Amino acid sequence: MNTVVGYGTYVDLIRPLIAGKEVISTGMTKEVERVGAALDAAQSGKSVALVSSGDPGIYAMAGLALEMCARRKIDIVPAGEAAAEGDLYTVGIEVVPGIPALCAGAALLGAPLTHDFAAISLSDLLTPWEVIEKRIIAAAEADFVMVIYNPKSKKRHWQLEKVQELVLGCRDGQTPVGIVTAAMRPEQAICITTLDQLHLADVNMQTTVFIGNRHTKTYGDYMYTPRGYGDKYEMGKMRE
Amino acid sequence: MNTVVGYGTYVDLIRPLIAGKEVISTGMTKEVERVGAALDAAQSGKSVALVSSGDPGIYAMAGLALEMCARRKIDIVPAGEAAAEGDLYTVGIEVVPGIPALCAGAALLGAPLTHDFAAISLSDLLTPWEVIEKRIIAAAEADFVMVIYNPKSKKRHWQLEKVQELVLGCRDGQTPVGIVTAAMRPEQAICITTLDQLHLADVNMQTTVFIGNRHTKTYGDYMYTPRGYGDKYEMGKMRE
Repeated sequence: MNTVVGYGTYVDLIRPLIAGKEVISTGMTKEVERVGAALDAAQSGKSVALVSSGDPGIYAMAGLALEMCARRKIDIVPAGEAAAEGDLYTVGIEVVPGIPALCAGAALLGAPLTHDFAAISLSDLLTPWEVIEKRIIAAAEADFVMVIYNPKSKKRHWQLEKVQELVLGCRDGQTPVGIVTAAMRPEQAICITTLDQLHLADVNMQTTVFIGNRHTKTYGDYMYTPRGYGDKYEMGKMRE
Repeated sequence: MNTVVGYGTYVDLIRPLIAGKEVISTGMTKEVERVGAALDAAQSGKSVALVSSGDPGIYAMAGLALEMCARRKIDIVPAGEAAAEGDLYTVGIEVVPGIPALCAGAALLGAPLTHDFAAISLSDLLTPWEVIEKRIIAAAEADFVMVIYNPKSKKRHWQLEKVQELVLGCRDGQTPVGIVTAAMRPEQAICITTLDQLHLADVNMQTTVFIGNRHTKTYGDYMYTPRGYGDKYEMGKMRE
């Protein structure tokens, strides 16, 4: 690997692993520029790692990388296959999966995602709010556990309360809601609340919100979603 | 760690890592028995790893483990905190996240999940089919990318064709569909097809099916979902 490309904060997290490498880091909203820089380097023959936090395929850079390959009409070959000398339009690509925030956060909360769930980003930068709202209503009505990415940003304040209002239209106010910020990082924060208290939760750009389905329960400091409906299975001895 | 508990196939995958440990492995449909054995061992003072493939919180054992802790009225404390001598009802638990099949499969297909998605299991063993069908329709209508777990089993044959029929009701027949079986294992198989050909796909219990949204595209041997709607961003130089 010659070159590491990524958002500054994420590159900083792996500094000890990339000593001596060329590093290209860019600001937060510069995704297109960042992927462009990674492709430029790869097209010039360098071996490049484009880093995301979590999993690169969940609301992250893998999609944009492929989109830009298509746009540039780059021929993608399996990683490790070399392009012919001077061929700037053949690049080997491998998407390396990781642990997404929805898994890291769920693990910290207990097990909210052990039944059907929907992941929804509240960022309306590239998606019209009407589409997002339609998804929230559909997921709420069909009793999906919901994982909310990007609940709030510096410029976006009202969307999470709108989610609360919409979901309260078809789910009980006591529905467990888990709030995880900066999962597995030093500033990690975990909170379990209820749907009717969601507007009081402390959320920011690093927060993922988990809204239980009709069967999600809390137990001690944890929340979990039973794997099925009804009591179709016998779970053995209870504490006396 | 004294004891490893898991489904036989998964325990076999980690044999080299668990030499010398007590191993309790059970058959495929014996989840309750398996978690019960893990809790019995933990309650007797042993340090126990309950293993799942992928991520333990996505359609896997973490939920049932917490459900059975609640049922047994076990007091859960952070992992590593010891129970008092003879206290059988205090157990330390940590859920360790992993890479779920939806991330491993997505990475092999390219990047189908870089926008909102819904994960739905077709297993009607513990969930009524009416609930599953309602979710399929909701996810299809709201244009979620869909990740289908458990598309088929030895005894379940017709559900995936029903999904195809339902989704075709509101999505184009040319919608890209990715089929990944046994991701990252020796018998791994990857196929990209279209929604109207889905009924011809070779799927089994180890398969995850990815149905694109209205904007999902294929490029070469890959599929990807653009991160936004419309052309709100400029992607720079095209190949001449």
